[in-house]
Amino acid sequence: MRPEHTGSGPSSTSTPDSHLALRRVAIDTYRENVAYLHRDCAIYRAEGFQALAKVQIRTNGRHVVATLNVVDDATIVGCHEVGLSEDAFAQLNVEDGHGAFVEPAEPPASMEALFRKISGERLGRGDFHAIVHDIAQRHYSKIELTAFVVATHRGEMDRDEVHFLTEAMVAAGRRLDWREPQVVDKHCIGGIPGNRTSMLVVPIVAAYGLLCPKTSSRAITSPAGTADTMEVLANVELPFDRLSDIVRQHRGCLAWGSTAELSPADDVLISVERPLSLDAPAQMVASILSKKIAAGSTHLVLDIPIGPTAKLRSMPEAQRLRRLFEYVAARMGLSLDVVITDGRQPVGHGIGPVLEARDVMRVLENDPQAPNDLRQKALRLAGRLIECDPDVRGGDGFAIARDILDSGRALARMQAIIEAQGSRHFDHHHPALGELTLEVKAERAGVVIGIDNLQIARIARLAGAPKVAGAGVDLMRKLGDPVQAGDLLYRVHAAHASDLAFARHMTEKSSAYQLGQAQELPQVFVEF
Amino acid sequence: MRPEHTGSGPSSTSTPDSHLALRRVAIDTYRENVAYLHRDCAIYRAEGFQALAKVQIRTNGRHVVATLNVVDDATIVGCHEVGLSEDAFAQLNVEDGHGAFVEPAEPPASMEALFRKISGERLGRGDFHAIVHDIAQRHYSKIELTAFVVATHRGEMDRDEVHFLTEAMVAAGRRLDWREPQVVDKHCIGGIPGNRTSMLVVPIVAAYGLLCPKTSSRAITSPAGTADTMEVLANVELPFDRLSDIVRQHRGCLAWGSTAELSPADDVLISVERPLSLDAPAQMVASILSKKIAAGSTHLVLDIPIGPTAKLRSMPEAQRLRRLFEYVAARMGLSLDVVITDGRQPVGHGIGPVLEARDVMRVLENDPQAPNDLRQKALRLAGRLIECDPDVRGGDGFAIARDILDSGRALARMQAIIEAQGSRHFDHHHPALGELTLEVKAERAGVVIGIDNLQIARIARLAGAPKVAGAGVDLMRKLGDPVQAGDLLYRVHAAHASDLAFARHMTEKSSAYQLGQAQELPQVFVEF
Repeated sequence: MRPEHTGSGPSSTSTPDSHLALRRVAIDTYRENVAYLHRDCAIYRAEGFQALAKVQIRTNGRHVVATLNVVDDATIVGCHEVGLSEDAFAQLNVEDGHGAFVEPAEPPASMEALFRKISGERLGRGDFHAIVHDIAQRHYSKIELTAFVVATHRGEMDRDEVHFLTEAMVAAGRRLDWREPQVVDKHCIGGIPGNRTSMLVVPIVAAYGLLCPKTSSRAITSPAGTADTMEVLANVELPFDRLSDIVRQHRGCLAWGSTAELSPADDVLISVERPLSLDAPAQMVASILSKKIAAGSTHLVLDIPIGPTAKLRSMPEAQRLRRLFEYVAARMGLSLDVVITDGRQPVGHGIGPVLEARDVMRVLENDPQAPNDLRQKALRLAGRLIECDPDVRGGDGFAIARDILDSGRALARMQAIIEAQGSRHFDHHHPALGELTLEVKAERAGVVIGIDNLQIARIARLAGAPKVAGAGVDLMRKLGDPVQAGDLLYRVHAAHASDLAFARHMTEKSSAYQLGQAQELPQVFVEF
Repeated sequence: MRPEHTGSGPSSTSTPDSHLALRRVAIDTYRENVAYLHRDCAIYRAEGFQALAKVQIRTNGRHVVATLNVVDDATIVGCHEVGLSEDAFAQLNVEDGHGAFVEPAEPPASMEALFRKISGERLGRGDFHAIVHDIAQRHYSKIELTAFVVATHRGEMDRDEVHFLTEAMVAAGRRLDWREPQVVDKHCIGGIPGNRTSMLVVPIVAAYGLLCPKTSSRAITSPAGTADTMEVLANVELPFDRLSDIVRQHRGCLAWGSTAELSPADDVLISVERPLSLDAPAQMVASILSKKIAAGSTHLVLDIPIGPTAKLRSMPEAQRLRRLFEYVAARMGLSLDVVITDGRQPVGHGIGPVLEARDVMRVLENDPQAPNDLRQKALRLAGRLIECDPDVRGGDGFAIARDILDSGRALARMQAIIEAQGSRHFDHHHPALGELTLEVKAERAGVVIGIDNLQIARIARLAGAPKVAGAGVDLMRKLGDPVQAGDLLYRVHAAHASDLAFARHMTEKSSAYQLGQAQELPQVFVEF
């Protein structure tokens, strides 16, 4: 058909008078691009655009796709402006006030594949590459991201689909090559507070000589991530080149400044998975393996904890997940060693950045106050990594790791890494803990038969962790410990009155500790 | 366990110094409650709250649950303020500056049922009531709403689940009782531009004497809803009591000011269904039937169009949907008559509020230029409604309806309704159309064998409909019409240069019309 033009319309969608001034709107919309147009926008009728849901903003040869919010306050955006949320604004890389064109955005090209997945179809390699590309490019709104996450949540992703998804996630970002035959890493599927084994495993295996450029992250819904805890001891925000030098010199690091470039779709998907607390096997496998492969790892030890309040609650469930991890890792050429661990309670004593850093340093210094469960678990995982060395016999890793720890070599390596990254001069003998405290005591005598991982994490988080480094929970009793009425079970630390009040409300509402008889202790699936 | 208090924390979560000043942030977040806290908020550490995703804001005995955005600009919200998006602010019913408490929100109680649905379980009556209650109370974020919509999208909702969902949606809002034995309504599942039969059916059946308080809505993704088109002729925003009087006096109305109170969860769900263009059978049935039952209807005629670019593309698909509608309607005590119609092309000539109002008035005035397809379809549907009268024999309704239309009684009733609602004095002989036009002509001779409903709707929408009432598309040729090269196929009307440019871009990119041989015309599934 031949469109013919009458009347006075412009001859192109980008006539000089159709642009608006770009404005940075200092609102953090948590990884969703949002555009703000005034309801009486001079050029675009914002309400008409509204239901179209997404607009494309072009300037300077770049563009972003954003969800539209309509604004009635000219101090936020005026009638000749288009506002962008902080993150979206940064993607355009121009100055405030720069001219920009706004257009209705076409739905992302992969939407058709997404609808097929929603309808229950099996998708192919090309479909996953198209979807992941659009996600990494921020072309999906939160609504579309959620639709993808829920549609791939059920047991309806087969192993090959998970492989295709993982492969597409690696392909969407940067991929590091350390030019060494073995690059080792460890990872835990999460859910266990205080589980800071990475900060012990890295110095042990680096001291042994293996290259271990640990990719770690900040907490999203937990009271502390490895990056938050390490930040108590050292600078963790370093440019990639600097980190790379540290890794080559010390064989390890505990910082990562540029994970966003590794498997970028993963960071975007997390923005909807975490608020929903969804952790589907398919997404967990693709998320973890894509990050590790993109970071250049050749060998990975994976910690899968089981327990009544862990992510996985039974051995058959853990075994199914292990097989899926192994299938995809094998297809991607990654050597994977899965270790199933005791997830019945938090690891160590402290929950929160400063408290966890204290525990880690105590283990490294062979302090008698060091939590033995953290020490034992770290040695077990480090031993398994050391066994990646073809010269080490299966079963010998643990003793090698223990020797490195007991001899002080792990501590020395940790100190070298801390100095290299930039020491914060943390004094773990006098840790700076939140000064407002709350003590929870036993109402009666008994044996500790349950500590709820989820509730302890939530209390620590409400108390201010990880944002307030000295906030958190310090556990005085662990599973199997006998207690008398009035004995201290745990202490909450906070720095702000409102935080302490939220944490107290949680401790009053429910019980993080269960007391009973020794024979009621939950079954340990794993000995170690 | 007994929490004990040490240090200087407050004794309650709502101490006098823990409140912030409430501030209306004039951003329309499209039915999602959003709260804005400054990153350096005096009381709450906004980043710590961020990943918790939702906060509860309490004031004056009321509360709202909102998704949190972190703000770095004190002109939007200051360090002692909590901002709320327009809609959320209105729910609290207080003045700007009023004190409010902010707390981390607990996940909605029905989240556990939602997770079971995501995992593929069948839910019971109580589960649906809990979920719909939380949705109607605005306790779900867009992410959670999408999860519900996608998890119930597959063919995994059985008939009883759809019944429970419908029942819960009715129960969550107001339910009208007109105190008459028969309250009739008609509805179309949508997807066909120009399908304004309601504006003919209502005056016909009201003139016949049946009570027809039409619940109609504004367009969300289409170029015009019945309310948008009726607004060209009369005021459609009237308080409920006034409408109720009009209905009692004239037996019908074509306006609705308070649909939000009828099945309120439906309005909330639409905010994610429409951007995704998801229209699952379960949700369509629950959405339509809950609104009609809440509005007090006892008899409903339902229009299900079929065609290559309609929502339903085959007769078996339409029959499956019909059976689901019938099952749920029967359980809910609603008398339902499903009519399967020709959805191969738009109905009438004009697409857009003014153009459609013109077509409707031409039919009512028995104007020779009136589109015959619109007239025939309206008579057929009105006839089926008239047959709800137990004194009318099956098959006689059409002739009764035709007599009412041909005699001018339908026009007289429409004029009475227009006067009662408040006339806008629309002159359909000289309709106020958008003055910028674009004509699309045939490139070669042939017969019109396809008109794409979706593309025509999109062009009309890009041209400015429904926000610009005079914008839209005027179709000069319909299916089966022979054309010569250069003949006008359709004309686009717009009021703004940028709108016309967007519409033209769409006409250039793809072809809304298909020309071919008469024998290539798509099969008509329905004779009428």
